[in-house]
Amino acid sequence: MFVYIAGAGAMGCRFGYQLHKAGNEVILLDMWKDHIQAIKNDGLKIVGDTEDCVKMTIMEPTEATKEAELIILFTKAMQLPTMLQSIKQIIGKNTKVLCLLNGLGHEDVIKQYIPEENILMGVTVWTAGLKGPGVAKLIGKGSVNLQSIDKNGEEAAKKIVEVLNQAGLNVTYDEDVLPSIWRKACVNGTMNSTCALLDCTIGEFFASEEAIRVVDTIIHEFVMVGEATGVKLDEQAIKDYVMKTSVAAAAHYPSMHQDLIQNHRPTEIDYINGAVAKKGDALGISTPYCHMITDLIHAKEHVLKIK
Amino acid sequence: MFVYIAGAGAMGCRFGYQLHKAGNEVILLDMWKDHIQAIKNDGLKIVGDTEDCVKMTIMEPTEATKEAELIILFTKAMQLPTMLQSIKQIIGKNTKVLCLLNGLGHEDVIKQYIPEENILMGVTVWTAGLKGPGVAKLIGKGSVNLQSIDKNGEEAAKKIVEVLNQAGLNVTYDEDVLPSIWRKACVNGTMNSTCALLDCTIGEFFASEEAIRVVDTIIHEFVMVGEATGVKLDEQAIKDYVMKTSVAAAAHYPSMHQDLIQNHRPTEIDYINGAVAKKGDALGISTPYCHMITDLIHAKEHVLKIK
Repeated sequence: MFVYIAGAGAMGCRFGYQLHKAGNEVILLDMWKDHIQAIKNDGLKIVGDTEDCVKMTIMEPTEATKEAELIILFTKAMQLPTMLQSIKQIIGKNTKVLCLLNGLGHEDVIKQYIPEENILMGVTVWTAGLKGPGVAKLIGKGSVNLQSIDKNGEEAAKKIVEVLNQAGLNVTYDEDVLPSIWRKACVNGTMNSTCALLDCTIGEFFASEEAIRVVDTIIHEFVMVGEATGVKLDEQAIKDYVMKTSVAAAAHYPSMHQDLIQNHRPTEIDYINGAVAKKGDALGISTPYCHMITDLIHAKEHVLKIK
Repeated sequence: MFVYIAGAGAMGCRFGYQLHKAGNEVILLDMWKDHIQAIKNDGLKIVGDTEDCVKMTIMEPTEATKEAELIILFTKAMQLPTMLQSIKQIIGKNTKVLCLLNGLGHEDVIKQYIPEENILMGVTVWTAGLKGPGVAKLIGKGSVNLQSIDKNGEEAAKKIVEVLNQAGLNVTYDEDVLPSIWRKACVNGTMNSTCALLDCTIGEFFASEEAIRVVDTIIHEFVMVGEATGVKLDEQAIKDYVMKTSVAAAAHYPSMHQDLIQNHRPTEIDYINGAVAKKGDALGISTPYCHMITDLIHAKEHVLKIK
């Protein structure tokens, strides 16, 4: 299959690498010039569970010309509209687009560019890191759940599941993927913003009863809003999942900490807690914790002169 | 007048110094051994608007024996019960106690030790800093508003106002001091917790519209709870006052930042936003912002292993 990875960060590199190794034609699209140059010069280096170096095609989004069979979206949330705008020329009538971004509400953006029967929404628990330009660190196992947002796209989506599974990506076609997307958003909404704000690891944050009260209240707001949008969510099961994840990831700084504190980059807060606050407002559901933490993260962005 | 200053931090030193210079007999009470030793050895040094060095008596609270005419309470909020317990022996039937601590709810603690007709609650906008053991930095002008919490104590309280005014402390007997106490709590409740959490100056925090939204919501919660406890508060006037204060103090880190971030000491959050959250719960008034920021500050205390 002819696949573009739109956003060749850590996760984009993982998916691109595995699809390439499985024999697909893969083109990475990214805007980071040092990263592009490193991969052009030396190939994509893989460290971690395996060591490898593969020649892969990488270019800026606007340089892509050949119509895609599949585009996997792996940008930062706020870069999504610009990316879609930049790759209009490779989107054909049959081009499938799989969104694996963190956060909520991306389908509303994608629908402006792609017909619904070609949109696949998904969620993944694979992880990856970038060690520097051209070097991806891949550790551990993961999985993907995805679904065509239009019943008419289901058959084609299942073919894509096969292609991804041939690349070892452990994908399930999910008849109801939204609860999984919301569950992951709850993980991000309780860990990312809080650890970024408190400048701490996930384990450090989850160590106090006060923190758990904050976590529980944020999850409650997510569940109220998610249910009101028609997504079936089990609040206790989500709490258990978040707690389990916090133990497994205790030593880690979440991605928003990396963005805000380590690299002084804008955060994805508007697509996580901010998205719930906005949906809550539209639905008349009170979400003060999501509102406050979204505003505090933005205030910190201002303090750090990121915005 | 024979005056004890219970808590000889920066503000205690200012009041003690000015009362001493005006001819009163003043004893400073404190627990910080280096500070006690420095003042015993070299006197209390004053820098800032004036340079001075005065011999003053300082001791630990339990060492005080002579019954007080006036005790001015200037401890950190969480040290108040211990202080009152330690100075029981100097509290007589006619001993007046003036509380100038930041925060809310201290009268409930003081009433357990002092008859109501002897309790004076007040609020001050004087400032002061400690440059190190035995050295107080005094800059600028301020004022005090105070009131006897019992009508029977009013006459005696007005005599104390005279004594304090002879020391240049710019004191007004206030027929209704609670609005001023709540107004100052609003200043602390919007600046201290937020700047401590975001590790920034008051001016840096107040620079974004997102921050102002947080400030406005916290003030709203304070006003709702204050009004429900019978204190008349003008929300717009308080917002204006907080904004004006934020401009005047823009370059400063508030005291909670000094405690939490600079010195890794426990904060007074339970007596500011935490007190409003608790009173709100008791009154059935929703205060999610006060709850969340109180829990986040405590979570940060845990992260820093302060608690």
